[in-house]
Amino acid sequence: MNTLKNLQLLIEDAVGKLSYPVTPAELYEPITYILSIGGKRMRPALLLMACDMFGGDVKKAISPALAIEVFHNFTLVHDDIMDNAPLRRGKATVHEKWNPNTGILSGDVMLVEAYKLMMQVDDGILLNVLEIFSNTAIGVCEGQQFDMNFEQQSHVQIDDYINMIRLKTAVLLGGALNIGALIGGASAKDAGLLYTFGEQLGIAFQLQDDILDVYGDPEKFGKQVGGDIISNKKTFLLIKALELAGEQEKQVLNQWLNAANFDAVEKVSAVTDIYNALGIRQQAEEAVYTYAAKGFEALDKLSVAEDKKQYLRSFADGLMVREK
Amino acid sequence: MNTLKNLQLLIEDAVGKLSYPVTPAELYEPITYILSIGGKRMRPALLLMACDMFGGDVKKAISPALAIEVFHNFTLVHDDIMDNAPLRRGKATVHEKWNPNTGILSGDVMLVEAYKLMMQVDDGILLNVLEIFSNTAIGVCEGQQFDMNFEQQSHVQIDDYINMIRLKTAVLLGGALNIGALIGGASAKDAGLLYTFGEQLGIAFQLQDDILDVYGDPEKFGKQVGGDIISNKKTFLLIKALELAGEQEKQVLNQWLNAANFDAVEKVSAVTDIYNALGIRQQAEEAVYTYAAKGFEALDKLSVAEDKKQYLRSFADGLMVREK
Repeated sequence: MNTLKNLQLLIEDAVGKLSYPVTPAELYEPITYILSIGGKRMRPALLLMACDMFGGDVKKAISPALAIEVFHNFTLVHDDIMDNAPLRRGKATVHEKWNPNTGILSGDVMLVEAYKLMMQVDDGILLNVLEIFSNTAIGVCEGQQFDMNFEQQSHVQIDDYINMIRLKTAVLLGGALNIGALIGGASAKDAGLLYTFGEQLGIAFQLQDDILDVYGDPEKFGKQVGGDIISNKKTFLLIKALELAGEQEKQVLNQWLNAANFDAVEKVSAVTDIYNALGIRQQAEEAVYTYAAKGFEALDKLSVAEDKKQYLRSFADGLMVREK
Repeated sequence: MNTLKNLQLLIEDAVGKLSYPVTPAELYEPITYILSIGGKRMRPALLLMACDMFGGDVKKAISPALAIEVFHNFTLVHDDIMDNAPLRRGKATVHEKWNPNTGILSGDVMLVEAYKLMMQVDDGILLNVLEIFSNTAIGVCEGQQFDMNFEQQSHVQIDDYINMIRLKTAVLLGGALNIGALIGGASAKDAGLLYTFGEQLGIAFQLQDDILDVYGDPEKFGKQVGGDIISNKKTFLLIKALELAGEQEKQVLNQWLNAANFDAVEKVSAVTDIYNALGIRQQAEEAVYTYAAKGFEALDKLSVAEDKKQYLRSFADGLMVREK
């Protein structure tokens, strides 16, 4: 089997070879741009890995893997418009570098191009693959809508939050693995188990991200520690804290949430103190382990040799301990 | 064979039966809304008619026909954001009724839903149908980009304008007919001929629209006569006028094009006078007939009985003489 690193390089190489028409330049240049500014190519590499696990020809899975990467970047382009984000991976977002209309329309073309790439599978699995891909795409859009809704809501339930991150982040990991497995010749059952693995690990991964935002090592995390606290982002930690807080803690929390002017360091420190007092980090870590365990349980049931599963286990372990 | 009217009713009924999840409401309500505010359902009805012409089962073509309608409405939602249009079919546009983010994301979901509907064809033609649909979708996006580019350009060539309207309007008519024919069991050759018919008629139809904007009967046209002149829209008429104008006419035209403050009636009248002096209406009508003739030529070559072709001829004649 190929290592994850090797599969990522395969994708990187294939992304570099994607070529689009020269005109209209305003439509196609942003596609090449957003695909060129990096990312770890984790989703398409996972699709290849799933194919590889079942003894499939990885080369035949390259186009569908690229479909996942182009689709993922389409969502980034449109999400960045909706979130009014100036930067993506440290570079100007498409709507900043060009304008929002260019972002909308280039994104639309990327979604169609993703379908064109995804269609490049054997006839026997074409319909199945496209159905999984379409349902994944719908899920990601629903997740983004819930995420935007939550920003406007004063109160969010933990279950709704988990469902949102499942849709926004996790189903694409699951979908990529599911499709890769089918291309590799897996049974529907095994492909479904890999979907569950990806979905549950995806949730664990996002929760881990919530923890790292507060408790991560600033040098390794790569983002501003406490960014979620500063922006009042309704993460697992904040939602759980509001749920568990006594009257006094709730009052202090709400004071910080409603403060228009504040010292950022002071706010991060005060809110973190409340998280610590309520044992929020432990709660969140337990949730990470619970979802990760569900993922590994699905992996256990997979009918492939243990040494092949090890690649996915290592990948998941890598995700879980990364940058803490 | 079914009449066009009958096929339009079939589509209207099927559109009414499309149902989407209840949550997130912000994502799905706009889809139901935009699909409910009408339109003539011409594109999906043409898909059914093409299927019917070749003896295909019209019922089997309903889902792909709906795909064309959902796709068309997706382009309206996104185009209206890009064009900053407050009204569509006399009703508030999606981004006005909700907000631009909702318009972007609901539109994205509509594109995926269109694919899901388009996938509901027999396995034997699935790949072919999806390739045609994808290429059509790409063409429509390219057309919209060229259209936006032309607004910023001081000079547009007639050929570039024709290519823009071909992409933005005509390829979807061609694509609908092409797909309908394949579902009906047509040969690739016949399906291609129907594509050409739709594409060429689509160009003729758009040029006719340019003429009607200036020379149409205000009561029948349904839009403000002279709207294109007032907004300096680079239509066939304006581009041709700038091409044929002598020094003096060019000066007067440019005066009106550059005027920041003007009386609308006066501007429409002055520019129309120049069009009349240069014989622009005749030039445009010749172009309409040239493209329509190319369309009918393709129809002539089609290997189906003449009485079946008559349905498409009547439809095209109806388009051409409508509301003059």
